[in-house]
Amino acid sequence: MRDYPLSQVFRLLEPGPVVLVTTSDGKRRDVMTMSWHMVVDFVPPTIAFVMSGANFSRSLLEKGRSCVVAIPGADLAEVCVRAGAVSGRDADKFAFLPLTPLPAEKVGAPLIAEALANLECVVVDDRSLAEYEIVILRVVKAWENPDRAERRTLHSRGSGHFFAAGREIDLSALFPKEKEPEE
Amino acid sequence: MRDYPLSQVFRLLEPGPVVLVTTSDGKRRDVMTMSWHMVVDFVPPTIAFVMSGANFSRSLLEKGRSCVVAIPGADLAEVCVRAGAVSGRDADKFAFLPLTPLPAEKVGAPLIAEALANLECVVVDDRSLAEYEIVILRVVKAWENPDRAERRTLHSRGSGHFFAAGREIDLSALFPKEKEPEE
Repeated sequence: MRDYPLSQVFRLLEPGPVVLVTTSDGKRRDVMTMSWHMVVDFVPPTIAFVMSGANFSRSLLEKGRSCVVAIPGADLAEVCVRAGAVSGRDADKFAFLPLTPLPAEKVGAPLIAEALANLECVVVDDRSLAEYEIVILRVVKAWENPDRAERRTLHSRGSGHFFAAGREIDLSALFPKEKEPEE
Repeated sequence: MRDYPLSQVFRLLEPGPVVLVTTSDGKRRDVMTMSWHMVVDFVPPTIAFVMSGANFSRSLLEKGRSCVVAIPGADLAEVCVRAGAVSGRDADKFAFLPLTPLPAEKVGAPLIAEALANLECVVVDDRSLAEYEIVILRVVKAWENPDRAERRTLHSRGSGHFFAAGREIDLSALFPKEKEPEE
């Protein structure tokens, strides 16, 4: 994996991919599948997601105050469903899912070696919209994995129905460049 | 357009499509392009988005306390870029974009006839995370348009780069059904 520029993180999440979120409290770790997330700001890269208190991951997030948002390729669709079907309360999901945890640089939660990208995140606000279980996070370090053959992201329609990213549409000639940070 | 069940609205936004958001204060109206949104809850269908105070749409949202989130097909990619490139402060975008406004049932903002789906939304919280310009909305009426030939949604990578929804992946046999509301 290699560095990915923080100012460009929005490009990874703006298309709405399924993500795998890893957490750790220093003793236990977990990974869960999630689609309810959005970009909040370009720089510093800020995101929001919904993580239910019913998830074991949420208790680890509360303790560790950080997580990794990993973006899998479409080849990991089955792993994403399996990661979402069981609770990390009962078992370390890394022990039976084909996902390799790697040490992160700035947070305690692991990176996922098989992901297209990994975003190390720290919690900046989990109180203001606690009623909706919304968490605001800042991305403090980003990685991309150029070695994966599968480059298409995975998108969820619910109930185990997904699609892979399809045909590219380039309208950059029409786009007002001043609207977004350049690398 | 025909009714779409409110309990299934999450399936439309969970994949992360580009959306067109319409607003009205009763006198003026606007439409803007947006990708920074997420599902917040299944039932009642609750969503969040980021709408900057720099956008004319935000001032109309503040006055009307409602909007329509329209989901365009990939055939509307150029319209989405053009809608995002100018401000509604200067002109009624419906006057020059190939989008047909239709009266909504429960909100003052218009539906978009050419969209795959239209979600009538009311603002439920725009204060708690005002620092991040996050707005929480409830979907109070949903419509789908089965007549559009283009069924693929549009997904943004930033700077005018998009992809269309691609190959479907059906893993519903692995999915734990109790996790989501059925129609």
